[in-house]
Amino acid sequence: MAASLSPPSLRPSLRPYSARLSPPSPAALFLRPPTTGSSDHRRPLRISARSTPVMDPTLKGGAPLPAVPTVVDVDLGNRSYPIYIGSGLLDQPQLLQRHVVGKRVLVVTNTTIAPLYLEKVTEALTVGNPNVSVESVILPDGEKYKNMETLMKVFDKAIETRLDRRSTFVALGGGVIGDMCGFAAAAFLRGVNFIQIPTTLMAQVDSSVGGKTGINHPLGKNLIGAFYQPQCVLIDTDTLNTLPDRELASGIAEVVKYGLIRDPEFFRWQEKNMQSLLARDPSALAHAIKRSCENKAEVVSLDEKESGLRATLNLGHTFGHAIENGIGYGQWLHGEAVAAGTVMAVDMSHRLGWIDDTIQERVLAILQQAKLPIAPPEIMTVEKFKDVMAVDKKVADGLLRLILLKGPLGSCVFTGDYDRNALDETLRAFCKC
Amino acid sequence: MAASLSPPSLRPSLRPYSARLSPPSPAALFLRPPTTGSSDHRRPLRISARSTPVMDPTLKGGAPLPAVPTVVDVDLGNRSYPIYIGSGLLDQPQLLQRHVVGKRVLVVTNTTIAPLYLEKVTEALTVGNPNVSVESVILPDGEKYKNMETLMKVFDKAIETRLDRRSTFVALGGGVIGDMCGFAAAAFLRGVNFIQIPTTLMAQVDSSVGGKTGINHPLGKNLIGAFYQPQCVLIDTDTLNTLPDRELASGIAEVVKYGLIRDPEFFRWQEKNMQSLLARDPSALAHAIKRSCENKAEVVSLDEKESGLRATLNLGHTFGHAIENGIGYGQWLHGEAVAAGTVMAVDMSHRLGWIDDTIQERVLAILQQAKLPIAPPEIMTVEKFKDVMAVDKKVADGLLRLILLKGPLGSCVFTGDYDRNALDETLRAFCKC
Repeated sequence: MAASLSPPSLRPSLRPYSARLSPPSPAALFLRPPTTGSSDHRRPLRISARSTPVMDPTLKGGAPLPAVPTVVDVDLGNRSYPIYIGSGLLDQPQLLQRHVVGKRVLVVTNTTIAPLYLEKVTEALTVGNPNVSVESVILPDGEKYKNMETLMKVFDKAIETRLDRRSTFVALGGGVIGDMCGFAAAAFLRGVNFIQIPTTLMAQVDSSVGGKTGINHPLGKNLIGAFYQPQCVLIDTDTLNTLPDRELASGIAEVVKYGLIRDPEFFRWQEKNMQSLLARDPSALAHAIKRSCENKAEVVSLDEKESGLRATLNLGHTFGHAIENGIGYGQWLHGEAVAAGTVMAVDMSHRLGWIDDTIQERVLAILQQAKLPIAPPEIMTVEKFKDVMAVDKKVADGLLRLILLKGPLGSCVFTGDYDRNALDETLRAFCKC
Repeated sequence: MAASLSPPSLRPSLRPYSARLSPPSPAALFLRPPTTGSSDHRRPLRISARSTPVMDPTLKGGAPLPAVPTVVDVDLGNRSYPIYIGSGLLDQPQLLQRHVVGKRVLVVTNTTIAPLYLEKVTEALTVGNPNVSVESVILPDGEKYKNMETLMKVFDKAIETRLDRRSTFVALGGGVIGDMCGFAAAAFLRGVNFIQIPTTLMAQVDSSVGGKTGINHPLGKNLIGAFYQPQCVLIDTDTLNTLPDRELASGIAEVVKYGLIRDPEFFRWQEKNMQSLLARDPSALAHAIKRSCENKAEVVSLDEKESGLRATLNLGHTFGHAIENGIGYGQWLHGEAVAAGTVMAVDMSHRLGWIDDTIQERVLAILQQAKLPIAPPEIMTVEKFKDVMAVDKKVADGLLRLILLKGPLGSCVFTGDYDRNALDETLRAFCKC
């Protein structure tokens, strides 16, 4: 692809446009920020950030005590699972081993992560547990390999090494690895257990939580997959030490999203702490991950299969997917495309008269502070956007539904009931042709 | 492949063997035939064969009344669905249309079935319902095409024609089409609705009911797939009029299975009515299909994900899969391999001393009457059996569990607790080397 695509160009400002108003629609699914009560929840929630002391049996008397992980629970009835968040968690074998089912483990990772963490994870799975045997499959790194051909390598390895139904698949890597390993676990022998060990901020705050798994098709992103929940998510924040800056910023795009769609207090915290996040301050990162996981866990618990509420997690993603697809997977990082897509969704919300100027300005400011793109690459045309958006998963009976901001900070809607002209104007404002 | 494989050779008798006894194991999952009460059921069952009058709105005053389908319900909570059984059901558009979700339908069928029934099904989906548009994808016919490459053709078609989440996939064909269409529906956009219209006896009595979907891997059968339930199963018994004799017999192998594992009365009925079934007597076929579906629905309702009971539906299938894989998919029909596999499982049960001579004799007699093979093809070796059985889905932590008959007619166990020598002796008795 053209060199101008990578790193993404940060356009200084948007082109002028005229706002087009349409009245608020009562038919839209209107989602307010969470209140302290839970009167509008369909069932009781159990979202807790608790501190569970987890002792490592390999540590002796004088050794330092292991770090105590923060635990966020994803409440899905008999498919509930914990998210462990903390520093040094991969040095606590018991944490991982308690979630391994059976005696055989397949670690799915990639060429970037394997040299860094595969040995450590293998040790965490086997130390003091000689009955467990660990196989691994190392895939090429990158979104462009998130396809059926690469997925088959996971099945081949699982079958050649004769893994059975009581095996456990472990996803060790970023979102691509998590999505592919999860779908492989969902489909292998019609379903085996799996564990997520996300090593990128993007995966830690978003893709490893909630059970969405899948692969891309040449014509669109994540078009083939499954809803399939892990046994646990283990987030060792130390793995962020090896993450490139651009990947860190990519993850921050999803962190910003949670603030915009449902958590205004978290958004204000981000505005104040963005420099600490970019400087990888451990406590700032830990808070951002915990708060993001709590938001995601709450949404997933209320709407696992995305009948409505969960779709709001896709703010900016419809435009973003079009960018990723239009310029070729892997040219931009997912979060970079989401950032530009968020700016477009916010622009459209503003054109519709659904949000005031200050929200739009604050979104631009925070994304620029995070050094994320605030416009699609120049190669994107109105036509390209429309082509890809036509096969988006949120199209129903031919109607494209979008997540748009509406109301005060932290409020959004998921709706197909908007003025088509506003969409056209946004596309024209961000594309040269 | 060698011509001797197809049609299968029917060996006149088994080689002599000495019975090896092992004591009955209390650890085994012991499954008795169903009693009139349901005291040992985990939850209330709702298996009914009811007659629902379904009026076709296109029929006018003087026209003959449409046939009333028999309905068997599969009780799976909010994923429950009906199985309609009867003659001429494809001439009752309303029956199908009430289960179509959305406005877009993709019919998945094959080169054999498309010329016979695709037009009829398209009409049934659209007559009086102009808002529904029907796409179709016609796959090559045969088990050897039940692979990822063929599955991708379904995804390609679905994506190229821009089907969305509110689409419905319709499987029109035998077991291979049902399994592939079902898995495609499970994975497309992480799950869309689907309907089964089975056109072979095998699919009508077994594979279309219960939600097992998937494809084969070069190293084993059905190793990649999903549990995914249809909206309904529509069995038009008229479609059996175009079924070759060999395919009819293949389906009968599964009918015999239900009698052996849980329904002795049904087995006795089959012994008396096998000639009527082979002669395609409509009422005999309808009864066999209904009773098979009732048995399958009951088992699936009790154990959807195959934690125990459901595995008993695989009587003869572990040996049978090894045959299909060992000689190459499509050389023998599935039911032919299951028949030979059933004889092997019964032989092993007899060696273990778990059943008496008369059961073994009756199994041989009924399968021979149905002109089904009662031994594997000569190409199969002990080694080939062991290689394939080692990757069977019923292996857990390295231990192969088998379905074996134990006790009076209609009783079986699913267990890994058996004398390994009995398995070896059975394999040696049926293989030249």
